[in-house]
Amino acid sequence: MDERLRKQLDFSLEIDKEKNVFRQTHLSGHGRNENDAEHSWHMAVMAYILREYANEDVDISKVMLMCLIHDIVEIDAGDTYAYDEEGLKTQKEREDKAKERIFSLLPDDQRAELIALFDEFECAETAESRFAHTMDNLQPLILNNSNGGSDWREHNVDSSKVYERQEKTALGSQRIYDEVTRPIIEENIEKGNIRKE
Amino acid sequence: MDERLRKQLDFSLEIDKEKNVFRQTHLSGHGRNENDAEHSWHMAVMAYILREYANEDVDISKVMLMCLIHDIVEIDAGDTYAYDEEGLKTQKEREDKAKERIFSLLPDDQRAELIALFDEFECAETAESRFAHTMDNLQPLILNNSNGGSDWREHNVDSSKVYERQEKTALGSQRIYDEVTRPIIEENIEKGNIRKE
Repeated sequence: MDERLRKQLDFSLEIDKEKNVFRQTHLSGHGRNENDAEHSWHMAVMAYILREYANEDVDISKVMLMCLIHDIVEIDAGDTYAYDEEGLKTQKEREDKAKERIFSLLPDDQRAELIALFDEFECAETAESRFAHTMDNLQPLILNNSNGGSDWREHNVDSSKVYERQEKTALGSQRIYDEVTRPIIEENIEKGNIRKE
Repeated sequence: MDERLRKQLDFSLEIDKEKNVFRQTHLSGHGRNENDAEHSWHMAVMAYILREYANEDVDISKVMLMCLIHDIVEIDAGDTYAYDEEGLKTQKEREDKAKERIFSLLPDDQRAELIALFDEFECAETAESRFAHTMDNLQPLILNNSNGGSDWREHNVDSSKVYERQEKTALGSQRIYDEVTRPIIEENIEKGNIRKE
């Protein structure tokens, strides 16, 4: 087998470990914690189904690929909960190191391509990355809402933090923010699942 | 919220259940059984990374989407193990029923689009669907091989069945079949992980 194919297979096997990185979000039906691979799959399908609501025209293939690879770095860096202030301080350093190690398993051209795509997602300055962030926020929101807001209650999350995080949702899709995100947040504040602040 | 968006969100929440459909394949590192959502995610990323080996030019966006949605029917129909002869007899009937119920949660245009894509995958007559099948075979193969062929041993699978299943791999990528699939099968026969017949 040539070196290029060997590297591509090594990377393919390595990313299997993403299935062991668990998140704070629980599956619908009050299920177990979700892992990063499942979350990424779910985001990518949702991006395709909901693409008509993106604020700007998006290359949906690029959005889907971004969704699929955006959490690979967590194989080394672990999942950082959106409301974990201590973890968030060191997140970038941990993820940069992971990014170098994991994507360097690939041939150079693919290493460069996927790192650029990951960086584009992180910066959230393009139409595609903004819509991918909308999905990154919306996917756990609909799961958590379907479970009566139990993830927010468990972590005693306050409303200012939820609104702060969800700002990115509107940058990718104002319509999803207005018609889905904001009503869900308001309802969960009213029910006491999100602490009002 | 309008009816169209409501339907798209209902579908998005429904497919969360795919994370509870477990397969016979085990994760690398002799891990737990893999579920369909993880398998689909892994296949889609691998399709992108390995696209240069497809026998024909492929629309990689379509291949990835096919990978992502090809097992949604198993939410109702369950996973049918590739070497379960009894299960295989009723698989099509069970999956057709599931396909109608689940994709009908979507607006009509998206229902038609995803059913057409699922049917295209099943027929395996286009370049995209053949390459998606290559990934559907290769992904569990590399996991199983990394675990010393334990999934084959556990099910006492014989070589003729493995070769029969893997024929589809070559239809999508002769190079992957020749350089990866066949050598892995031969090595596992030699080691006694696959029963020689």
